[in-house]
Amino acid sequence: MDDIVTLSVGGGGRGFQKFLNSLILKELGNPILNNLGDSSYMTIDGEIAFTTDSFVVEPEFFPDGDIGKLSVCGTCNDLAVSGAVPLYLSLSFIISEGYKMEDLEKIVSSIKQTSEEIGVKIVCGDTKVIPRMGKPQIFINSAGIGKVIRSLNDYKNIKVGDRVIITSDIGRHGISMMLVREGIDAVIESDCCLLYEVIKNLDYKYIHFARDATRGGVAAVLNEIVSMGEFGFEIEESTIPIEDRVKYYCEFFGYDPLHIANEGVAVIILDKDYADDALSLIRETKYGKKAAIVGEVVEKKRVILNTSIGGKRYVEMPLGEILPRIC
Amino acid sequence: MDDIVTLSVGGGGRGFQKFLNSLILKELGNPILNNLGDSSYMTIDGEIAFTTDSFVVEPEFFPDGDIGKLSVCGTCNDLAVSGAVPLYLSLSFIISEGYKMEDLEKIVSSIKQTSEEIGVKIVCGDTKVIPRMGKPQIFINSAGIGKVIRSLNDYKNIKVGDRVIITSDIGRHGISMMLVREGIDAVIESDCCLLYEVIKNLDYKYIHFARDATRGGVAAVLNEIVSMGEFGFEIEESTIPIEDRVKYYCEFFGYDPLHIANEGVAVIILDKDYADDALSLIRETKYGKKAAIVGEVVEKKRVILNTSIGGKRYVEMPLGEILPRIC
Repeated sequence: MDDIVTLSVGGGGRGFQKFLNSLILKELGNPILNNLGDSSYMTIDGEIAFTTDSFVVEPEFFPDGDIGKLSVCGTCNDLAVSGAVPLYLSLSFIISEGYKMEDLEKIVSSIKQTSEEIGVKIVCGDTKVIPRMGKPQIFINSAGIGKVIRSLNDYKNIKVGDRVIITSDIGRHGISMMLVREGIDAVIESDCCLLYEVIKNLDYKYIHFARDATRGGVAAVLNEIVSMGEFGFEIEESTIPIEDRVKYYCEFFGYDPLHIANEGVAVIILDKDYADDALSLIRETKYGKKAAIVGEVVEKKRVILNTSIGGKRYVEMPLGEILPRIC
Repeated sequence: MDDIVTLSVGGGGRGFQKFLNSLILKELGNPILNNLGDSSYMTIDGEIAFTTDSFVVEPEFFPDGDIGKLSVCGTCNDLAVSGAVPLYLSLSFIISEGYKMEDLEKIVSSIKQTSEEIGVKIVCGDTKVIPRMGKPQIFINSAGIGKVIRSLNDYKNIKVGDRVIITSDIGRHGISMMLVREGIDAVIESDCCLLYEVIKNLDYKYIHFARDATRGGVAAVLNEIVSMGEFGFEIEESTIPIEDRVKYYCEFFGYDPLHIANEGVAVIILDKDYADDALSLIRETKYGKKAAIVGEVVEKKRVILNTSIGGKRYVEMPLGEILPRIC
């Protein structure tokens, strides 16, 4: 195959056939994808969940991840926190002409590894090549279909007194990207990971709501929920899991860690009587070891943070994007 | 709302909320989308078809269409030619900072109009904003789910003697784009349209295969099919529907019209005894008036064109992309 991506890779002709056979089908092939129809066919009994995300992360390679891993995790996590078993993904590449084929191969290899870890199948895809402007880039869209066990996205199930669990330490993805971009010689590994295992062992009937804390961080998730219901949150700063180094760089750059995007952290709101059991179950999983109960649902329709030094402050919705192109 | 797209529109914060409420939900809202969960929930009995496409067309506005119409047609057409009823779409925007909000509104309005025409629901979406490089751009990914009536994508159903129908005149989308790009003062309307109506009235058991002739044109579709089976095609140049103006510009630019991408033309391979009935049914539909039987399936594993002047030539797979960024 050529060393770089050329227009012919996206053209539906011979160049595309070569790219498809020697990279995509070789790495990601399965009986459904290999059929190469206009659509792929599948049967799922009962309710399905459907979601989509485009990934434009810059740089595409970062500590402990890349845009390929991110595109599988992001979409599978949206399905998982919706209460669905992630089953099928579509994958669509937009690539600048001149992009290194070697980098594309690494990205496809990450996609293979991550999709195998969770057991989803890539069943359909598309590739478009655009003229290069500046540094060659890659954008990936993934859409996903899962089988619904029970909806975890219904605000109406949330009750005053419910507990809030954060499934891992916050802010690592955002700060990891930030350090790479600023050229700071300290490696913080991204939190990018698959959340399905963290959620699947829990008893869904006690989970009243779940969402992954990506763009806008934990602050955006909690404020969005508050905007939809007639209640608020009170959370304890001292219990929020965060690495010292992440806390340090947040202070250094002047960021609120609650605003920083995560790619492997879910906010789970659940019955208070189930909170301790759920916490133990989450901590037994590979990506849930640092989970913590961080607060509860209260009557007042605001998000209040009880700070470590004994004060209180409102946690606001982030105004815009603090770190653009983080996902 | 601001006049231009800013980073905050893609940021998951307040700017995004505003964009979502005052444009996306206002125009495209429906009970499933309005829930704004991580995923959307739906139930489809039986087999589903799943497909994805990214649209990077340049310019985004062209005679009789734009990238919004294209993104709905493209994905719905893939479902339709797969033998499925298009039901649900995801929609994901990647937009450069500085893109005119007025243009985005026009695109969303086209999406609304086209999705209402066919009756599909936009059920989930995503928006990312990237830094501007050169002229601000927009890319749209749509993934679609349909309910399968009967698979029309199985090469094994094709038999020697089957007839080939082209559902409309070829090459208008490609040549339309070409004229706009070259600044030639002749307007040829794109063929971009919804193919579902053209197919839905036919008796699926007599349709042995269907595909829309997009990238690579009719030549790519026929050659792809030949590469999968043990048969070939013989088509008659004199019967291929094509506008005189399109033919003229193909000759002028030195293009084979069979290589030009279409966005509203399907190739349907069907039982010879059903071909005349099917042709009548197709011609009764809005976008099938110029349909024609153009050839048949033969034993020799090549695509042969009997030319209008009495010669024979092989129709080859296009080597690369003749007109990049046409879809």
